[in-house]
Amino acid sequence: MDEFPRTDRTTVRRLPARGSYDRELIHSILDQGMVCHVGFVVDGRPFVIPTLHVRLGDRLYFHGSPGSRMLKSMAGGIDVCVTVTIVDGLVLARSAFHHSINYRSAVVFGTARVVDDPDEKTRALHALTEHLVAGRWQDVRTPSPGELKATTVLLLAIDEASAKVRTGPPIDDEEDLAIPCWAGVVPLAMAAGEPVSCPRLAPEVEPPPYARSYPGPGDGSPGD
Amino acid sequence: MDEFPRTDRTTVRRLPARGSYDRELIHSILDQGMVCHVGFVVDGRPFVIPTLHVRLGDRLYFHGSPGSRMLKSMAGGIDVCVTVTIVDGLVLARSAFHHSINYRSAVVFGTARVVDDPDEKTRALHALTEHLVAGRWQDVRTPSPGELKATTVLLLAIDEASAKVRTGPPIDDEEDLAIPCWAGVVPLAMAAGEPVSCPRLAPEVEPPPYARSYPGPGDGSPGD
Repeated sequence: MDEFPRTDRTTVRRLPARGSYDRELIHSILDQGMVCHVGFVVDGRPFVIPTLHVRLGDRLYFHGSPGSRMLKSMAGGIDVCVTVTIVDGLVLARSAFHHSINYRSAVVFGTARVVDDPDEKTRALHALTEHLVAGRWQDVRTPSPGELKATTVLLLAIDEASAKVRTGPPIDDEEDLAIPCWAGVVPLAMAAGEPVSCPRLAPEVEPPPYARSYPGPGDGSPGD
Repeated sequence: MDEFPRTDRTTVRRLPARGSYDRELIHSILDQGMVCHVGFVVDGRPFVIPTLHVRLGDRLYFHGSPGSRMLKSMAGGIDVCVTVTIVDGLVLARSAFHHSINYRSAVVFGTARVVDDPDEKTRALHALTEHLVAGRWQDVRTPSPGELKATTVLLLAIDEASAKVRTGPPIDDEEDLAIPCWAGVVPLAMAAGEPVSCPRLAPEVEPPPYARSYPGPGDGSPGD
């Protein structure tokens, strides 16, 4: 099993049995999560902003939309914690105490830097788009040099990371098993509805397969 | 319109037209979001941990599962940023540049403190359970004094907060409208599957309505 080394900040402290440092698992969570939450510190205070991300091998790229505030304090890189969480189900136990959710979360720590090189930026934007909707990039107008400049992409090396996962049925105390209430798991997943065409679209243009039956993020991830 | 005062850290900098300080909107995002991401700072470095939350009036309670690390540095309270993000759809534009997602996110800043009072803790756990699954609390065994002690609940006053929201179709550049690719929105929402009974459940116990057709979080929120 290929694992990330445990560091002081990646080591899962509470319910350590749920923690994992397995590279393949962590990569799969990053690939299947639609948004990430980027944490950073400004003037000693925490900020957490949602944005879009993609993994390319051992690199995590994310959209600099949270940029302005973050970038102000960025000369040479900014310390971040990027967290991706996928909710898989409600865990309904017989006691309130043992209620939980089934989830997979990955946390990556490190110093993020702005991607300046236009080629790397284009590769990252291609991957970001394909992570969201596999097959989309070839159908659309690709970024102009001005758009490339106007887009901030950040890069974080994935070398300090951990995951936390809960799966399976509720774990009740032995003496609660006789309580006559239902217990089990309600599976949850992101589901796509019918695509809604842009009001300015010519009526004969049909939605492509990836819009008619969207398979979720990560399908187009180049993997490693 | 009842608004939160804008502060330096709640003011939305990028795409400020998407920012809002409307109390009702911010409350609705907190109520409809299933998990929150809690950001905090330890030794100057950011941590972002997913956990469960509930709003009760102007108070946000969240589960102290991320506790151990956070609590170590907590004497008297810890500076946090709690972010709740709901993804509503993929926004597929004719240009890669204008791709986006429709989303609603709320950010609450402040000093969180541990809830010690057993009555307040019980009220918070009741609300946390009902936020996740309305109707569940009355069916289950409520926490024993020992379980109450073993559960960490944190409280954050909701008085410094903002929201950011994107809705509607893609906004393409006028000159891109003739590009013959489909453009529009693919709506996304969390959907529940068939409930899976606990293997140790008596076979005659049927899933209750909230498990058979789970309406999502927030339904049971006491609101304000």
